[in-house]
Amino acid sequence: MSEIIATYSVYDAKHNPEKKAEEIALGLTIGSWTTLPYLEQKQLKKHKGRVVSVEGLSEESSKEETKALIKIAYPAVNFSADLPAILTTVFGKLSLDGKIKLIDLQFSDSLKALFPGPRFGIEGIREKVNVYNRPLLMSIYKGVIGRDLPYLLAQLKEQALGGVDIVKDDEILFENDLAPFAARISEGKKVLTEIYEQSGQRTLYAVNLTGRSSALRDKAKKAAELGADLLLFNVFAYGLDILQELREDDSIALPIMAHPAVSGALASSSVYGLSHSLLLGKLLRYAGADLSLFPSPYGSVALEKEQVLSIAEALTTEDAFKPVFPVPSAGIHPGLVPLLYRDFGNNSVINAGGGIHGHPDGAKGGGLAFRQAIEAVLNGQSLLDKAKQHDELRAAIELWGHQEVTA
Amino acid sequence: MSEIIATYSVYDAKHNPEKKAEEIALGLTIGSWTTLPYLEQKQLKKHKGRVVSVEGLSEESSKEETKALIKIAYPAVNFSADLPAILTTVFGKLSLDGKIKLIDLQFSDSLKALFPGPRFGIEGIREKVNVYNRPLLMSIYKGVIGRDLPYLLAQLKEQALGGVDIVKDDEILFENDLAPFAARISEGKKVLTEIYEQSGQRTLYAVNLTGRSSALRDKAKKAAELGADLLLFNVFAYGLDILQELREDDSIALPIMAHPAVSGALASSSVYGLSHSLLLGKLLRYAGADLSLFPSPYGSVALEKEQVLSIAEALTTEDAFKPVFPVPSAGIHPGLVPLLYRDFGNNSVINAGGGIHGHPDGAKGGGLAFRQAIEAVLNGQSLLDKAKQHDELRAAIELWGHQEVTA
Repeated sequence: MSEIIATYSVYDAKHNPEKKAEEIALGLTIGSWTTLPYLEQKQLKKHKGRVVSVEGLSEESSKEETKALIKIAYPAVNFSADLPAILTTVFGKLSLDGKIKLIDLQFSDSLKALFPGPRFGIEGIREKVNVYNRPLLMSIYKGVIGRDLPYLLAQLKEQALGGVDIVKDDEILFENDLAPFAARISEGKKVLTEIYEQSGQRTLYAVNLTGRSSALRDKAKKAAELGADLLLFNVFAYGLDILQELREDDSIALPIMAHPAVSGALASSSVYGLSHSLLLGKLLRYAGADLSLFPSPYGSVALEKEQVLSIAEALTTEDAFKPVFPVPSAGIHPGLVPLLYRDFGNNSVINAGGGIHGHPDGAKGGGLAFRQAIEAVLNGQSLLDKAKQHDELRAAIELWGHQEVTA
Repeated sequence: MSEIIATYSVYDAKHNPEKKAEEIALGLTIGSWTTLPYLEQKQLKKHKGRVVSVEGLSEESSKEETKALIKIAYPAVNFSADLPAILTTVFGKLSLDGKIKLIDLQFSDSLKALFPGPRFGIEGIREKVNVYNRPLLMSIYKGVIGRDLPYLLAQLKEQALGGVDIVKDDEILFENDLAPFAARISEGKKVLTEIYEQSGQRTLYAVNLTGRSSALRDKAKKAAELGADLLLFNVFAYGLDILQELREDDSIALPIMAHPAVSGALASSSVYGLSHSLLLGKLLRYAGADLSLFPSPYGSVALEKEQVLSIAEALTTEDAFKPVFPVPSAGIHPGLVPLLYRDFGNNSVINAGGGIHGHPDGAKGGGLAFRQAIEAVLNGQSLLDKAKQHDELRAAIELWGHQEVTA
């Protein structure tokens, strides 16, 4: 039967998670069961929620509360096959019901078949940049609020000359007269094409898709017509279903980079909300993101490493959908490349803002330092060793330090 | 200058909330300041974030963390006038930055002017039900998953005969073959019109607007054409901007009842996310909801009373927009009417599910018991006193108890 199985962590002050689970399974589906006449039971059976398992976590329980992991199966016949309906069913009213967190959702195969997954995924993005055997390198526009187009284009050029594969807009850059959306795309394209023709360096630009919800698709189509490379999208400021609609529209057909803006409001608490792996991992993948940005475990805006790895796992694990590029972000500098490679492997994007622009030689130097670090790690060479031949990497290490990984 | 002032609560492990505030004000606007040349400072000044105030909360601080309230002003020139842009600016990346919660947003008047607020508000809804001098009474369809249209219509009739002003769909009822959206509206209308013609009891029905994001507006227009009374909308499963778009569309022009499904994921933590008053109060009001449901402070799914009252306050306080009907929900029975009236006053909606349907005489009895309780409270009569003349109220009190308020 087509269904979705939700896993919750609960802290139950009544110390009876089994009862709580039964209440959820009935309360969020048919309401009641034992009091129903036989004929109605027969009629409603296929709509009835089911307790799959209840696992007490005694080590995390206390005299006040029993912590448990609860799994409930919801028949898909109860909801339409869209994420708003699913979220409302499995964590609508329930999100308000005390200490409960939605940890995971398992879609049955027939339900999965109704979701798109990424249009491009890791392979498709690699084809676009023509890079197959190393992590990609991405950099972020920096300090661009209030700046005009020539300023942005100069910054774009520096970043591209540093050898980055993708440059992304700052997520807080919205439609503005100084550097309008369409001009950023078409003028940016000129700069990047020129660099490609001169040097062979192929850099893509992810433009921030913003504005009113119902205008996004037309704006994205226009971006596609203008030759945009990728869309950056603040999905959690809009809604997961809007991401999915952008993905599904064949007249857009651009890779989508999901930004985690606002997601901290949903995922930061260990007691409430949604797990990071579900929100920034599985749901983004099912809805169709091609890249997912999330806080790295190393930087200033840090998540716990276990959580971060669970996001990357959800993005790339064997599933019905293409894998999504994990983009651990924030606080990344060239000296962290060995750690990034160890933790996220080849199929990840190394993404830096300050670690590119703050380089003594500017964004170009920052990009080069990253590329040198990546090359070293792939060759099994230590960063210090590599830095002997490369000024940019040496300068980066002197400024920010480095962490080697000894296997 | 047009701007938005965000209030945050932070727990700062570095015990320097002033520095944190400065970092936010710059980091989320122009990036840097003191290192900029004079000419650039001049150019960027109007884009620069500003620390309005930093208030240490010593009683809630500890050796580990200083708690503080921080207010930052963001120039509106930095973002487009839509809620996704505003949320991304003021709580995008920042939502991921440790223990920080968005408590309030103050829109400048010129920014407010770009938002719609409710089309109907309290007065407009009162006109629709033709009730001006008492709290409205609302009831919720119950146990309708897997049920067919005749079952729903019978339930609708019972509720209307009980004298409820509004019947709302269960928020987990989606598009389904047994009781399709269009049929629920048009057949429901027949039932309610018949009751109105026979008894003068005017009951409205709030139909659950569900489906894919981009299809909602057409579906809502269809609802309007079919003569729908109100739309129920799971706004937090979609996005606030979608609510606003539904509100702004003159060819829909139906009152919108915002359901708090999924909002617990954003607002439950005292450390992370958004405050209840901002999320379920101010933002819903600015975006254009006419009624806002939220957990009552009395029932099983309970919020702290202070938080609940702050929601009602945000919905109804003097502002540029029409006031929104507060609908404290969950665990409401007739015996709580004195408390509800004391806490939420005349301009509120008393909303019950189990407290209507669980009445020994069914939904009709439940509705009558509520109306009797409301009448008693308005007349300054005790419930027990009133129950002497009314079997329905007496039965309700015997079943669920009651709480009198002595002024």
